[in-house]
Amino acid sequence: MSHLAHVELAKAYRLLNHGPTVLVSSAHRGRRNVMAAAWSMPLDFQPPKVAVVIDKSTYTRELVEASGSFALNLPCRAQARPALAAGNQSGRELAAQAAGDKFQELGLRTFAASQVEAPLIEGCVGWLECRVLPEPHNQQAYDLFIGEVVAAWADDRVFANGHWLYDQQTDPALRTLHYVAGGAFFTIGEAFDATSPL
Amino acid sequence: MSHLAHVELAKAYRLLNHGPTVLVSSAHRGRRNVMAAAWSMPLDFQPPKVAVVIDKSTYTRELVEASGSFALNLPCRAQARPALAAGNQSGRELAAQAAGDKFQELGLRTFAASQVEAPLIEGCVGWLECRVLPEPHNQQAYDLFIGEVVAAWADDRVFANGHWLYDQQTDPALRTLHYVAGGAFFTIGEAFDATSPL
Repeated sequence: MSHLAHVELAKAYRLLNHGPTVLVSSAHRGRRNVMAAAWSMPLDFQPPKVAVVIDKSTYTRELVEASGSFALNLPCRAQARPALAAGNQSGRELAAQAAGDKFQELGLRTFAASQVEAPLIEGCVGWLECRVLPEPHNQQAYDLFIGEVVAAWADDRVFANGHWLYDQQTDPALRTLHYVAGGAFFTIGEAFDATSPL
Repeated sequence: MSHLAHVELAKAYRLLNHGPTVLVSSAHRGRRNVMAAAWSMPLDFQPPKVAVVIDKSTYTRELVEASGSFALNLPCRAQARPALAAGNQSGRELAAQAAGDKFQELGLRTFAASQVEAPLIEGCVGWLECRVLPEPHNQQAYDLFIGEVVAAWADDRVFANGHWLYDQQTDPALRTLHYVAGGAFFTIGEAFDATSPL
């Protein structure tokens, strides 16, 4: 992975603060999966925490509960189709058919995380490695998982020194995705500084 | 409020799904306040629920706990400055000085919600009226509040029939805001359909 740069933990929340859709990756004892999640957010600065909704019916849920960890990968515009498909296909069915896994099915290549079993997805623009902070009531009642971010990474073409670099010169294919419903996405748009004169 | 249209509850999550920054409004027995929150997300479809982080130090926290309700207002680009200021000023100080409230301080006009005490903010592009689902552990340990959405509204110039209408003809001033840090915002960008041919 060229362009992979470390993000200091105190700035990790900035990867999620603007509300991108993420791909949740997970792995346990050789099984692995990926799902899309529009429902995630930062939950604390330092140590950084995140919240993410992982439905009981998902194969990801099984792997996250078994491994106690997951990763949030921030897909970019170039990955909208696999991101959409990751939300529509079940990794459990692929596993049951011994038909490979969902990464292979979707053409997503991965690389190893530094702190968790979950693989990280090549071509994404940000990555948060997370350990589950067990909250059985939240998990059961709301499908809500809380994780502590134990390592974070970004593509240094679009995020460096704690700041997103998106501007009019940025390759649009590298912009973060923001899902609505039914295949409809936005990419993140114009950056501006509300402290500057209009 | 012209352009105010009802959003059916089953579609209310779509107001938050793409990750906008919100203004949390609250009121209790004549006191009212507003704060900015980048940390909110949908939590369920039907009945719709949301999660939002409300720090213990805030005046909003006091009013939300006292009233058991709040509203999430989606500010647009035209409101970036008051949205930023809403995150930087304390309503408690204004209240202590009998110097009016933060809505007045920020020049934000309001109108009455239909189901909750919290006022709704004019000029926003979406509104979710929420009743707190009490979760004392989450509130204490994570500053995390869960609310059930009991009514939702949108500006029908930008959201109608359950869909965001943003396109190249949309007034940029009406686009949703996505906060990063230090006064740096994005507006939501290009809409596209990932199910269509490229």
